Amino acid sequence: MITLLTDFGDSEYVGALKGVILRINPEARIVDITHHIPSFDVRRAAYALYTNFGYFPPGTVHVAVVDPGVGTSRKNIIIKSKGHYFVGPDNGVFSLLDAEEILEIELDEASSTFHGRDIYAPTAARLDQETPPGELGKTIESCLSIMAGNPSLDEGMITGEVICADAFGNIITNIRGSDLAKLNIEFEDMLRLRTGDKTLSMSLLETYGQARDNEPFFLVNSSGFLEIALREARAVDTLPLRGGETLTVSI
Amino acid sequence: MITLLTDFGDSEYVGALKGVILRINPEARIVDITHHIPSFDVRRAAYALYTNFGYFPPGTVHVAVVDPGVGTSRKNIIIKSKGHYFVGPDNGVFSLLDAEEILEIELDEASSTFHGRDIYAPTAARLDQETPPGELGKTIESCLSIMAGNPSLDEGMITGEVICADAFGNIITNIRGSDLAKLNIEFEDMLRLRTGDKTLSMSLLETYGQARDNEPFFLVNSSGFLEIALREARAVDTLPLRGGETLTVSI
Amino acid sequence: MITLLTDFGDSEYVGALKGVILRINPEARIVDITHHIPSFDVRRAAYALYTNFGYFPPGTVHVAVVDPGVGTSRKNIIIKSKGHYFVGPDNGVFSLLDAEEILEIELDEASSTFHGRDIYAPTAARLDQETPPGELGKTIESCLSIMAGNPSLDEGMITGEVICADAFGNIITNIRGSDLAKLNIEFEDMLRLRTGDKTLSMSLLETYGQARDNEPFFLVNSSGFLEIALREARAVDTLPLRGGETLTVSI
Repeated sequence: MITLLTDFGDSEYVGALKGVILRINPEARIVDITHHIPSFDVRRAAYALYTNFGYFPPGTVHVAVVDPGVGTSRKNIIIKSKGHYFVGPDNGVFSLLDAEEILEIELDEASSTFHGRDIYAPTAARLDQETPPGELGKTIESCLSIMAGNPSLDEGMITGEVICADAFGNIITNIRGSDLAKLNIEFEDMLRLRTGDKTLSMSLLETYGQARDNEPFFLVNSSGFLEIALREARAVDTLPLRGGETLTVSI
Repeated sequence: MITLLTDFGDSEYVGALKGVILRINPEARIVDITHHIPSFDVRRAAYALYTNFGYFPPGTVHVAVVDPGVGTSRKNIIIKSKGHYFVGPDNGVFSLLDAEEILEIELDEASSTFHGRDIYAPTAARLDQETPPGELGKTIESCLSIMAGNPSLDEGMITGEVICADAFGNIITNIRGSDLAKLNIEFEDMLRLRTGDKTLSMSLLETYGQARDNEPFFLVNSSGFLEIALREARAVDTLPLRGGETLTVSI
Repeated sequence: MITLLTDFGDSEYVGALKGVILRINPEARIVDITHHIPSFDVRRAAYALYTNFGYFPPGTVHVAVVDPGVGTSRKNIIIKSKGHYFVGPDNGVFSLLDAEEILEIELDEASSTFHGRDIYAPTAARLDQETPPGELGKTIESCLSIMAGNPSLDEGMITGEVICADAFGNIITNIRGSDLAKLNIEFEDMLRLRTGDKTLSMSLLETYGQARDNEPFFLVNSSGFLEIALREARAVDTLPLRGGETLTVSI
């Protein structure tokens, strides 16, 4: 099984990826995760990939093509993590994964402008046919990470980072529900958010339905991440917390 | 075979549904009907589902997730109709079907915010694997209907209801071509439409090509429903007949 | 394998096509090339089809439904080219293919408004089941071409035609990279473009990255066609060269 996650939108370039895969392996099962990542938004792609790959069966090959640097010298890589394979550019799109093995893809015939079609699709088709990754690339030490690792927990305070805004404008942080539990933070607690020189008090709610109009709130989303949300509105438009920004949450 | 019909739009939540299904049954065949039902438009979803399920082979499982009430106490149900299965919320999205059997889904592990992923996808996967519905839920008497049943026919007059506006802004009614035939109404007849305190005269045309600019007309669409249309325009913008409104059509 | 290329957008009409195919052949593999061809843009569809069909395995059946003339008397056809089948209206959407055999589809049960569902989908399903084309239609001599054939090459000058603008607003011509090679034109050469009464000088670049802001340039795209592009902008908005327009390129 092969999944696709790109910023190709509604264009026929998606069809080209699928054709290349199916020409190599007509039996391949191809599933679209989404093709509507905002153009070049590598952080958003990393989040969408990380929160969705685990729904698929082990052995699935995930292709991620959100690639502002196509044509530059960034590497093309394969990552192995938790029994899944990941194929795409070494630009941070795999930052949230625990990479167990990283390989740089070695392919000569690549065009300079369409690596999805010429490198990632054929590589994915071959991995899906159980070609050993070692025949497709050579092991390398590390890949680019564009995100902080886990948040740091202190007495009554968690320091984390904004991952990205999601499709609904919710601001997703790298703080997990389990981090809150370690600090005995519970639903309906009032928490303090600090970022830059701003401080805000917000409740931790259990469901969107509990929110009041125009009052931003914390919520642990269905993927387990702490997010900042606004009832029926895009929190990111009101609280412009951008990907990469540091924040602290305290009781 | 499993079809999906949602208001998830272009987001990666579609990928999560597919992953959950394929993890349970990697052989499942998943077909998108559409993911672009306008947000929370249950009537539109009911119409799109009803007019499309019959194209698929008997035994197909149809998942419908257009669900403004997620997190409230509305039930989650399975419906059996005409050899097909339907899975989704009990909010009227199945109003147009002739339900032969209705079951309330019994599942413990559900999150409060993403029933599509946590309830409907696994239920559909199991139905598709031929798990008997009785193992997935318990039979209940009825489900919510948000639409009138069939229109009532009187001497030279039909009283019906607006189902919804379709993707092109055509106003779809619950009157069928066969109802018109019973009253001996024929193409090119001039008909009178009454709704609220308004009366309009409109021709019944056979094809869109026969219409004149700026003159709304009746047409029996390719699904057999009487609709009100405008040449190269959205009738619903000119004649704001909303879903649920009563109308009468007479000679 | 069956591919779909339409201007149906996000509507559920795509689901109807798939249902009809799968009802005839539940084992059919269906792949979307795109459903977002701009409405009725036959040239754009012809280009998207031509540049993508070759990625799929031989024997694939390609359905193209971009059809401003539905309901008129234009034919419905099957084309055989390079081991692939093509099914759709005879309106020019197959203009870029080298047709080896052309058949007019003979089907009685067609509705007047939805040929995709009623004619092309069942025809494709049967071709995919290896029904001989001769059982689905009768051979005809020719189909409609709405494009010039190959460009004409003269001493230091190529006369061609605009095919269409692509998804990024690049202006695609029917001149191929190989035509430039025959005239010994090389990357970084300055070329003259003439169209109507306008003349412009533009460089032939190898990659988009070499371009300067606000200076239109020539590029041989990843499908081998000479195009006119603008760095991070839509060339077609600045140089309104429409599909069908004649142009000459010279050294």
